[in-house]
Amino acid sequence: MLKFYYAPSTCALASRIALEEAGATYEPVKIDFASNQQRSPDYLRINPKGRVPALATTRGVISETPAILAFIAQSYPAAKLAPIDDAFAFGQVQAFNNYICSTVHVAHAHNRRGTRWANDPVALADMKRKVPETMAAAFQVIEDSMLIGPWVMGDSYTICDPYLYTLAGWLEGDGVDPARFPKIQDHMNRMAARPAVQRAQID
Amino acid sequence: MLKFYYAPSTCALASRIALEEAGATYEPVKIDFASNQQRSPDYLRINPKGRVPALATTRGVISETPAILAFIAQSYPAAKLAPIDDAFAFGQVQAFNNYICSTVHVAHAHNRRGTRWANDPVALADMKRKVPETMAAAFQVIEDSMLIGPWVMGDSYTICDPYLYTLAGWLEGDGVDPARFPKIQDHMNRMAARPAVQRAQID
Repeated sequence: MLKFYYAPSTCALASRIALEEAGATYEPVKIDFASNQQRSPDYLRINPKGRVPALATTRGVISETPAILAFIAQSYPAAKLAPIDDAFAFGQVQAFNNYICSTVHVAHAHNRRGTRWANDPVALADMKRKVPETMAAAFQVIEDSMLIGPWVMGDSYTICDPYLYTLAGWLEGDGVDPARFPKIQDHMNRMAARPAVQRAQID
Repeated sequence: MLKFYYAPSTCALASRIALEEAGATYEPVKIDFASNQQRSPDYLRINPKGRVPALATTRGVISETPAILAFIAQSYPAAKLAPIDDAFAFGQVQAFNNYICSTVHVAHAHNRRGTRWANDPVALADMKRKVPETMAAAFQVIEDSMLIGPWVMGDSYTICDPYLYTLAGWLEGDGVDPARFPKIQDHMNRMAARPAVQRAQID
């Protein structure tokens, strides 16, 4: 059976929603960030990068949210979570998820994870100060030219939707009013109503 | 015909190598970073994110290196650039490429693109100072637990290889001696000998 390593209030939520949407059977394993369990020797054997999420399969571990999401879509084709047989359409899905991963999530991480890239308290404070601007700019691109609606890729719900929902949920904490982005806000409401999204957030 | 938008000395090299390996017919279009052409209205119509690479197909534009690489692998199956029909093996490929994109490239970008995340000159200097440490740490994880050898995924050359090659080429400029990573250095030499890699670097 799949084991899904996660922590609450992290990007792992996106993959967990996808597992629920796919109807996958999996064991959720909570990693305790308060005690820095993600850096423990036991967890580093599972994911040497010391991050969540990680998905342990019978063949090995997959990490990185866009990779886990695509794996779920490909492993549960009946759930139709991505147009995996259409190279261009699948490329669009992956481009969206990579943007979330490498631009949006990275912008957010400069708020409380600045020590990944700087040490000086002056630098950490300056990075934190810029987060509302970078997050707003990143979401403006999504609002204006990426989110087709009602779902990210248009009429079909895909693995892009839980990922956008997860990071859009961080806007307020990052000092950005989500009401600036009406399409994204409509998307969030639509997501929150899905049973799989509710099940994924029980714990 | 495909149009490939790139700039020299950027991560676009990875996708261009993959296009060459695939035997794709494409028109390379150089974007002039010196005149900030990536932010010009004409280019923003192609890629609203104002970045390279971007691959224009008959159906639309694909951006983000991991997405472009997977698109090339899927569009030219005869080149066998990724195990696209094996969800787990493809998941491993994508996990590697996402790590390069969201951790390694982001670590590097704090050297000369720090204004993406900070404004204060003290912050920019501090970020720059930490780059050798973060780049070395990121490549140590690749050396120790990701690069199987001789290619990233083992015996089969995949879309991970041009991506690793491209970013490993930045180590010296980021103040890290590539000789610290013998497996990665062997990989670089092996890559440099491939005709597709040489063709991709003519301009």
